Amino acid sequence: MNITLEKAERAIQAAQKKAVEMDVKMNIAIVDSGVNLVAFAKMDGAWLGSIDISIKKAKTARYFDMPSGEIGKISQPGKSLFNIEHTNGGLVTFPGGIPIENEDGHIVGAIGVSGSTVEDDHAVAEAGMKAV
Amino acid sequence: MNITLEKAERAIQAAQKKAVEMDVKMNIAIVDSGVNLVAFAKMDGAWLGSIDISIKKAKTARYFDMPSGEIGKISQPGKSLFNIEHTNGGLVTFPGGIPIENEDGHIVGAIGVSGSTVEDDHAVAEAGMKAV
Amino acid sequence: MNITLEKAERAIQAAQKKAVEMDVKMNIAIVDSGVNLVAFAKMDGAWLGSIDISIKKAKTARYFDMPSGEIGKISQPGKSLFNIEHTNGGLVTFPGGIPIENEDGHIVGAIGVSGSTVEDDHAVAEAGMKAV
Amino acid sequence: MNITLEKAERAIQAAQKKAVEMDVKMNIAIVDSGVNLVAFAKMDGAWLGSIDISIKKAKTARYFDMPSGEIGKISQPGKSLFNIEHTNGGLVTFPGGIPIENEDGHIVGAIGVSGSTVEDDHAVAEAGMKAV
Repeated sequence: MNITLEKAERAIQAAQKKAVEMDVKMNIAIVDSGVNLVAFAKMDGAWLGSIDISIKKAKTARYFDMPSGEIGKISQPGKSLFNIEHTNGGLVTFPGGIPIENEDGHIVGAIGVSGSTVEDDHAVAEAGMKAV
Repeated sequence: MNITLEKAERAIQAAQKKAVEMDVKMNIAIVDSGVNLVAFAKMDGAWLGSIDISIKKAKTARYFDMPSGEIGKISQPGKSLFNIEHTNGGLVTFPGGIPIENEDGHIVGAIGVSGSTVEDDHAVAEAGMKAV
Repeated sequence: MNITLEKAERAIQAAQKKAVEMDVKMNIAIVDSGVNLVAFAKMDGAWLGSIDISIKKAKTARYFDMPSGEIGKISQPGKSLFNIEHTNGGLVTFPGGIPIENEDGHIVGAIGVSGSTVEDDHAVAEAGMKAV
Repeated sequence: MNITLEKAERAIQAAQKKAVEMDVKMNIAIVDSGVNLVAFAKMDGAWLGSIDISIKKAKTARYFDMPSGEIGKISQPGKSLFNIEHTNGGLVTFPGGIPIENEDGHIVGAIGVSGSTVEDDHAVAEAGMKAV
């Protein structure tokens, strides 16, 4: 089971709406259950460096079926997954990536958001995730 | 001057409409004048391998400000740009990538399409480009 | 829908059996419908360089939902997909990669085989594919 | 001296059996003495991001002929091998990778396991290693 383009675009629109409300400029990426890119949007003026980060956040969330920030808690120096970021072509382990489930609770993809603080990024990703 | 997200999404929608008319499933990517990804959509069922190709076609078209297929004519064995595909993290030099100009004739980005024959890809890219 | 490990291992075993019959030493890789590695086996004495090739053949077959060798016919100099091999982290476009379908005709993954002539590689891949 | 495919598959089966007992879903990779992939299995439902990690753990264990977690102890900030993870195409230096010796004490390869906590990963890798 995979997220459709229609639902991916709905998630991006909901995320964009939240970003406008919060007055932030975001890059928003959606990957499917196989960790392949489905949809992407860069809001005008959003950081260029956040394009790649938003995609990697979405991938990280699906790679491990949990919010990207959860990985970051245990990838710190001295913690159990230190430097896991070197795997899978580059992970992003701070908040802003969230898995997306369908109504049956199956993970069908993930959303990744980057462009502001990690708290803002996570809030916008959550708005997108909830719209699916 | 750069393509806005609004115009990029208009190009993607026009390209998708054309793809539906032609009964093909496409991946469609838009980059800005700085060769950075602005918007992307993978139509349901489109080839997974065409995600990367559509993005690389858009980049190739903006890297050299000409349709990607024009580069391909001179990247053949014995021609002047043989194997230029090795550069810039991987170019795609067959048709399907087209620069996008604004009303003043300035290049503001490019569109890349992949998912069918190169003729189909180019036709869908042209439909997207003309919508801007 | 995705190939299970059980079916992937059945495909590898059937491919290995065929390889023994043909007196060749093969690397055999299976990817799922999202182009992620599911199972792999390197027969003793098989070429080391064929490890990566077998994985890339399986990926190529799923990336475009056709045998890898079909892509190779049109990636030659002067043909429409010249140098497509530079995309998706490296494609292999000679025979030996074949998509795997389930009983409903949905593609659930792909098999890639490398270690002998491309004809041998394809024959062994076909034996594996048919066992699923 | 190199691990055979037969022994590699025995290690994978023993690791899978242990994983089932522990009720975890693992990716399991075996490399030979030349740090080349010999066998791999992804248990149904195991994390997609752990495919690459399991392979990198096996490689890390053979690259330095010690459990991957031993490297992690001295790759921390301020320690002698800080950020060694950048080398060799990406190392994984937390537990789950273990060298495999033959009956004479010669290292013939390594096993890497990923899919749960690092303690679980190491326990499953040890079960696989001991089966050879």
